[in-house]
Amino acid sequence: MTRPVLTDARAPLTRSVQVVNAHGEEEAISIPAERDLTVYVDKRELVTLMTLGAHPEWLVLGYLRNQRLVRSLDAVESVTVDWDVGAAAVRTREGIDDIEERTSRRVVTTGCGQGTVFGALMDEVDSVHLPDARLTQAQLYAIVNAIRLQESTYKSAGSVHGCALFRGEEMLLFVEDVGRHNAIDTIAGWMWLQEDNAHAAAPDAPLVFYTTGRLTSEMVIKSAQMGVAIVVSRSGITQMGFEIAERLGLCTVGRATGKHFLCYTGRERLLLQPALAGTRLRSET
Amino acid sequence: MTRPVLTDARAPLTRSVQVVNAHGEEEAISIPAERDLTVYVDKRELVTLMTLGAHPEWLVLGYLRNQRLVRSLDAVESVTVDWDVGAAAVRTREGIDDIEERTSRRVVTTGCGQGTVFGALMDEVDSVHLPDARLTQAQLYAIVNAIRLQESTYKSAGSVHGCALFRGEEMLLFVEDVGRHNAIDTIAGWMWLQEDNAHAAAPDAPLVFYTTGRLTSEMVIKSAQMGVAIVVSRSGITQMGFEIAERLGLCTVGRATGKHFLCYTGRERLLLQPALAGTRLRSET
Repeated sequence: MTRPVLTDARAPLTRSVQVVNAHGEEEAISIPAERDLTVYVDKRELVTLMTLGAHPEWLVLGYLRNQRLVRSLDAVESVTVDWDVGAAAVRTREGIDDIEERTSRRVVTTGCGQGTVFGALMDEVDSVHLPDARLTQAQLYAIVNAIRLQESTYKSAGSVHGCALFRGEEMLLFVEDVGRHNAIDTIAGWMWLQEDNAHAAAPDAPLVFYTTGRLTSEMVIKSAQMGVAIVVSRSGITQMGFEIAERLGLCTVGRATGKHFLCYTGRERLLLQPALAGTRLRSET
Repeated sequence: MTRPVLTDARAPLTRSVQVVNAHGEEEAISIPAERDLTVYVDKRELVTLMTLGAHPEWLVLGYLRNQRLVRSLDAVESVTVDWDVGAAAVRTREGIDDIEERTSRRVVTTGCGQGTVFGALMDEVDSVHLPDARLTQAQLYAIVNAIRLQESTYKSAGSVHGCALFRGEEMLLFVEDVGRHNAIDTIAGWMWLQEDNAHAAAPDAPLVFYTTGRLTSEMVIKSAQMGVAIVVSRSGITQMGFEIAERLGLCTVGRATGKHFLCYTGRERLLLQPALAGTRLRSET
């Protein structure tokens, strides 16, 4: 496989601002950066993404992948990000068929579900076949603990969503962005670049997707499309997320902090070890 | 002013599902409902909103308002919501000019920034003139406390965003939805219906917008467009939110829990009373 040529245009992730606190005092705090990145495909403007800017090249690749604009990494010759002009220039080897029809100019803002394409993703749900992945409760606890220990923009500046990809207990990648869609798209782009060996090294350990955000329909669908059958969240689940995960047989685990969690769907993929849950806290009743 | 005729089609806000917890036990929990509501304007399909369903008629009115599709409430004859078919039928008195050009079919998903229109909103930022609103620290604390005491879907089921509109310390409306854009659109719709008397009763008390979500550029812009100069959040701020609020002279207050808060921008609108902040906690240093 021919890999695309990528720049490495990581930008500063936080900015310092002066605020006033409840005691009437000046404070300098960090807030997450948020910059617009306009994606051009073969010199044609495609979309403007609002991003933290940690991994813009992976984000662009993952966006093209998850929007179903590019079916194979082979098709991409290069991604060149230049923050001075807020642009990501994508060169393809043979162009993208029907790109005029399949896209129209739009700004995708923080937290946006990237409207149009969502309907198309839903249509594909029933054709998805998930791998036979299983996770033990001990592995789940190790994942939650790894996230707890992770240094992050969230800890220093707040107001970002974090996502991570695990193979068993091993964290492969941790990504933050102002919008959770960007974070998952970035992981999708990175996975594409690793595709040759993603499952090879430890075929028995399941791929697990972690998100600080809610388990919405889009998170469930994108995870399934990435071939990840287990999704863990610090937050809860929405009804559409629940229903689609149930239909897919995808394992969703929410409210995962410390020893606590709830398994909403696909519980056959979670090997329970209740003895590990420890003594029941009064607040859990 | 002729008011539109509205149905009152509030739907159940939660659904009970069976989950398994860390102790290996079955639990019945509530999750927020999430249903699709397809909006038809004069029998033409406009958009599908994913919503909790608490106030669908206000949501539809606020959506039309915030998307700049309808400039005056007079133009709307009726909004008829029927959950059996997941439809909201809007009848206008004289149609909407250029509706074909100004819209195209799209699904707006949970948390979505409603892409296309955002660019147009940004263009309007500099024409916004905010009222001369000022809030005391005591009023701010009263607002945070009122939110703490509010019964909510969030408390029973989690995974929703809450927004509220205050006049001084008085909560006028509290709205939750699966996406924060829906919650703010619902408030915009409700405000439209109250417009005759919104500022009349207590002209000296400022309108204040509260959100559980982050202070993003969209929240700041939509608040400004609603004529609300002060926005309070439990969460933090993003860089774009900060920059636009600064440009607008809009007062943003974040991390507002208990006695703690940070005023990011527009601090001249906040009348500080540091004595109310109480003894400094060690965790605040």
